[in-house]
Amino acid sequence: MISFDCDYNKGAHPEILKRLIETNYEVQPGYGFDDYTQSAKEKIKEACGGGDIDVEFLVGGTQTNMVVISTLLKDYQGVIAADTGHVSVHESGAIEYSGTKVISIPGTDGKLNPADVKAWVDNFYSDATYEHMVIPGMVYISQPTELGTLYSKAEMESLAEICHERDMLLYVDGARLGYGLMSYEADMTLEDVARIADVFYIGGTKVGALCGEAVVFTGGCKPEFFMTSIKKRGALLAKGRLLGSQFDTLFTDNLYFIIGRHAIDMAEKVKEIIKEKGWDIYLLTPTNQQFVLFDEKQMEEVGEKVGFDRWAPYDESRTVVRFATSWATTEDEIEALRKV
Amino acid sequence: MISFDCDYNKGAHPEILKRLIETNYEVQPGYGFDDYTQSAKEKIKEACGGGDIDVEFLVGGTQTNMVVISTLLKDYQGVIAADTGHVSVHESGAIEYSGTKVISIPGTDGKLNPADVKAWVDNFYSDATYEHMVIPGMVYISQPTELGTLYSKAEMESLAEICHERDMLLYVDGARLGYGLMSYEADMTLEDVARIADVFYIGGTKVGALCGEAVVFTGGCKPEFFMTSIKKRGALLAKGRLLGSQFDTLFTDNLYFIIGRHAIDMAEKVKEIIKEKGWDIYLLTPTNQQFVLFDEKQMEEVGEKVGFDRWAPYDESRTVVRFATSWATTEDEIEALRKV
Amino acid sequence: MISFDCDYNKGAHPEILKRLIETNYEVQPGYGFDDYTQSAKEKIKEACGGGDIDVEFLVGGTQTNMVVISTLLKDYQGVIAADTGHVSVHESGAIEYSGTKVISIPGTDGKLNPADVKAWVDNFYSDATYEHMVIPGMVYISQPTELGTLYSKAEMESLAEICHERDMLLYVDGARLGYGLMSYEADMTLEDVARIADVFYIGGTKVGALCGEAVVFTGGCKPEFFMTSIKKRGALLAKGRLLGSQFDTLFTDNLYFIIGRHAIDMAEKVKEIIKEKGWDIYLLTPTNQQFVLFDEKQMEEVGEKVGFDRWAPYDESRTVVRFATSWATTEDEIEALRKV
Amino acid sequence: MISFDCDYNKGAHPEILKRLIETNYEVQPGYGFDDYTQSAKEKIKEACGGGDIDVEFLVGGTQTNMVVISTLLKDYQGVIAADTGHVSVHESGAIEYSGTKVISIPGTDGKLNPADVKAWVDNFYSDATYEHMVIPGMVYISQPTELGTLYSKAEMESLAEICHERDMLLYVDGARLGYGLMSYEADMTLEDVARIADVFYIGGTKVGALCGEAVVFTGGCKPEFFMTSIKKRGALLAKGRLLGSQFDTLFTDNLYFIIGRHAIDMAEKVKEIIKEKGWDIYLLTPTNQQFVLFDEKQMEEVGEKVGFDRWAPYDESRTVVRFATSWATTEDEIEALRKV
Repeated sequence: MISFDCDYNKGAHPEILKRLIETNYEVQPGYGFDDYTQSAKEKIKEACGGGDIDVEFLVGGTQTNMVVISTLLKDYQGVIAADTGHVSVHESGAIEYSGTKVISIPGTDGKLNPADVKAWVDNFYSDATYEHMVIPGMVYISQPTELGTLYSKAEMESLAEICHERDMLLYVDGARLGYGLMSYEADMTLEDVARIADVFYIGGTKVGALCGEAVVFTGGCKPEFFMTSIKKRGALLAKGRLLGSQFDTLFTDNLYFIIGRHAIDMAEKVKEIIKEKGWDIYLLTPTNQQFVLFDEKQMEEVGEKVGFDRWAPYDESRTVVRFATSWATTEDEIEALRKV
Repeated sequence: MISFDCDYNKGAHPEILKRLIETNYEVQPGYGFDDYTQSAKEKIKEACGGGDIDVEFLVGGTQTNMVVISTLLKDYQGVIAADTGHVSVHESGAIEYSGTKVISIPGTDGKLNPADVKAWVDNFYSDATYEHMVIPGMVYISQPTELGTLYSKAEMESLAEICHERDMLLYVDGARLGYGLMSYEADMTLEDVARIADVFYIGGTKVGALCGEAVVFTGGCKPEFFMTSIKKRGALLAKGRLLGSQFDTLFTDNLYFIIGRHAIDMAEKVKEIIKEKGWDIYLLTPTNQQFVLFDEKQMEEVGEKVGFDRWAPYDESRTVVRFATSWATTEDEIEALRKV
Repeated sequence: MISFDCDYNKGAHPEILKRLIETNYEVQPGYGFDDYTQSAKEKIKEACGGGDIDVEFLVGGTQTNMVVISTLLKDYQGVIAADTGHVSVHESGAIEYSGTKVISIPGTDGKLNPADVKAWVDNFYSDATYEHMVIPGMVYISQPTELGTLYSKAEMESLAEICHERDMLLYVDGARLGYGLMSYEADMTLEDVARIADVFYIGGTKVGALCGEAVVFTGGCKPEFFMTSIKKRGALLAKGRLLGSQFDTLFTDNLYFIIGRHAIDMAEKVKEIIKEKGWDIYLLTPTNQQFVLFDEKQMEEVGEKVGFDRWAPYDESRTVVRFATSWATTEDEIEALRKV
Repeated sequence: MISFDCDYNKGAHPEILKRLIETNYEVQPGYGFDDYTQSAKEKIKEACGGGDIDVEFLVGGTQTNMVVISTLLKDYQGVIAADTGHVSVHESGAIEYSGTKVISIPGTDGKLNPADVKAWVDNFYSDATYEHMVIPGMVYISQPTELGTLYSKAEMESLAEICHERDMLLYVDGARLGYGLMSYEADMTLEDVARIADVFYIGGTKVGALCGEAVVFTGGCKPEFFMTSIKKRGALLAKGRLLGSQFDTLFTDNLYFIIGRHAIDMAEKVKEIIKEKGWDIYLLTPTNQQFVLFDEKQMEEVGEKVGFDRWAPYDESRTVVRFATSWATTEDEIEALRKV
């Protein structure tokens, strides 16, 4: 079936599988000491502009958020996030499981407003009893957000500045970073992200890999004995080559960016189709997710022909539905959508 | 290089990769709701003899131990394990990270002696102040153990009986279960394990998969909202098909057992070679890991030709080294070892 | 100095100290097995109307919230609270430290609106992906709230009904319960609270004790091996008699209620004085805390004569300040306030 | 009844209660900002020889161990303790609840042998895969131990040296430190302990207080935002004066040491009586706990006249029983024991 449900319902980019097969019988040490992991780290480091950068691989997004947040924050600190942020809502309490409070602040279309963050933090420190509260030690944002929106470079820099004034780290969840970087509206490169954020991850799972996320630590902020901390959280892969090989492939010949751009090209066509059809728009975004409002009849009629995601109830008669593209979206699928 | 270092230093059994490629473009829902996961669950259930069995997939061994132990135990309970058990030593404190105490009891060649467990538990409950201690709620064993040894059916049944008398669960870590079941000395089938243990896992990572472990809950002991608890621990894979497809393949046409037997056949040859060469024996086992004592000269000379694992220091002049076979060990490699 | 800062800045009610001295040399077993603890449990049980009630003593409020919430909730559950709730804001992340997410919902003057809770929960279960989120397992309210306001019996019953329809427990934080029960506007007795809530605590620290809170479990919901779970959280007192004796005293001859009424009588006078003086009112409440708005000049002038608490910044020129009464507030102090 | 059961079955030293009463109506800020807490900190600092010392108060021993260990250790570290150590056995898993593994090493009569610790750590770091294990970050000892034995100054210095060579902290659980310091065999002063240990606590609960332990951090090792971390663990007392006042009293006119010496004087008499009576000796110690072996008849006959503690089963016919003295043991009680 033709599906725009999400960006993780097909396998992996064929180059990734090809590479796994080519290297299958090579003997490689476990736990990330293999050659592919080393190579992938170097390539990502270079793509980030080099310098004082450390790269580590983890399996999935929630796991990455939990590992990064709980190893970087101090005992008395918590993390600020938009109320729609993945860590605020959709991680089954993984951050809290690691003992850390998520401080949710209302956002707009998935984005934290720098002024709101500043006001919250200023207010926090103006409270004489703030030591009875969790001390904010990090700001978490997603780029693109869970709603497909993008921070501009100026916004992200502004957040970084607010963070650094208050001894907080800026952490960027890049589960779909490839789609953000290759958006027609993007005004940031990967190097920019590496320069602005203290720590971020380059998502693989939703950008063509079977699994895997690459965490990038800047400014020497990678925790000591990080492998021990990863294993402590059940997150260390014995066959680390599975992650290394995939990211080595994604960062060879710009594959990661090519994948990202393809999904964006397809998403732009989806937006055109949505407009052509006159569907009620909830949110059209510069990345790979588009949101429209369907009534029950539309849900049924369109749903017979193409798959989409029921995002959330909207009002009594309508539902927000999501159309997502990915590395795997084909022109045929776009045509099928056009003919719905 | 020819390597007997461990059973996870090559990729995956070719059938597993083949299947990933064949199904790569199929649209499948995420989080384990895909067809392969469903099919794999059914096949494993059948291989376990059917009945009141639930199967769930996780990514790695330490993660599986942490998820299973921490979701099945009650707040006031801890888990008994051999002092050499993986959970006692080699998980970077993952069980403790989940808030649970591992109560380590001395074992013999990696095995818990049922009489020792009984004595420990009897002594525990004879202490008037036992409510000031962690209440034992589970016994953890590995089959085969970390040292390659095997519990007999009678021993495992005896442990199960002791557990059930004291309201404890018997949990079997089967990271290398395939090698245990297909040992020439095995007196247990997978059905037996499913009948005797309350919960166990069928290891994939070390038995031919890229990653993945299949947890088998018997007697309806699978926790409610288990997926939520998995995600809470950062252990839920978005592309669950990666696990489902691999286990579906492993449990098609007995592949899991064929892999296990192959490694055992190779291990028997390794044992012969060890004896022929007159190497000092530390422990020869009925499964895929053999342990010998090498002095520095042997380490160097043999090490130039084949890979093995430095297991542990033994005495001033000698080191325990491990020779492991796997699904990927070839006759050529055996011959190379013979010619060392 | 005359102080209306808070309700925990003097020692303990003299009867409590008297009793500690009288019983000081009696030999009593530790850990809550002493006669006073047993007697206090019986008296509280009786005051709650008897029936299927268990009483346990803990040392402080945050500790009590953490112990109760984390032992009653299941692994996959979280707790709903008002955004101003003590567990949401002022516990330094203690609930999250125990691995549990606090789901904060906007309240009004410190109170959760039953309709808002119902809407939130209905919306939660209408989301097809709710298993990726923390499942609500409890509603936490404070009676009186952190802002001194009170739930009516009808409101609390309504919350209980919503809870029970959705398999949630209703938990009432009664840090200042005595002041709530003895308010002139109270329409609930302690028996009512015990009938409506699933679990609650009767605050001692802020109602005349040196320390101590009495947790009341109804309907047999006290967790098994609760003492073990208490100790696991570092919350078990060796000399449990310190808690038992204080609550035995508080529940002898209605002392707890007499203390509560005294503070309310004093608070009513404080409200009169506030009105007489024409101070800007932020919130006058039916319990022992009153909130007014002071500018810098008022802060200084009044502050020279009586103590009050700087609650929170209000606008550019004014601050919310709190005047609290307690068991220890004297008529002389009231007169001093009047003369400010 | 005359009781030698334990050192926490009477109330508090009368001076402590007297002081509570005298200061009862004074207005003092909460959370340890009161004058008594400040004064107590200064007095303890002075008693420790001054210098770079920070003092903080907590409520009980298990809580103190949990707070200190979990705030001082890094994410990847664990704590080494004797297998009989309080943290190894009798804390219901509190250290593990805070996410930290206790690495238990066999001790002798409750004491860790420095050579054994050194051998364990050397062996740990000789393992090429040590990053898959919890990294030892602290050595925990009790002075006196749970069995009443004492480390000599040389032994404690030796442990400190081993710790510092391996980047570990030496932590001394002084639940009964007063009895250790005032033992006739003591070769260490409080200043010595403060000089040798990195962190330790001066026990109040078992040395005459109602509750309370004073943690002493040396060399600036007190964690930042420690109050926030205390509250996060539910361990912050609102009326901190309860702890401050007690320790201020204990460290006025040497009361803490006088109490300690009194219990030791009484314990020496108990030892004499044990020898006179020819009771089978399990362990006579230089501190306030003595252990003998009673058969059932002795248990019954002696138990009719004086209380003692059933410590542990010994052999088929005998039980280890404990006779403890305390600040509250009287000459009359000693005489009663003599006449048993």
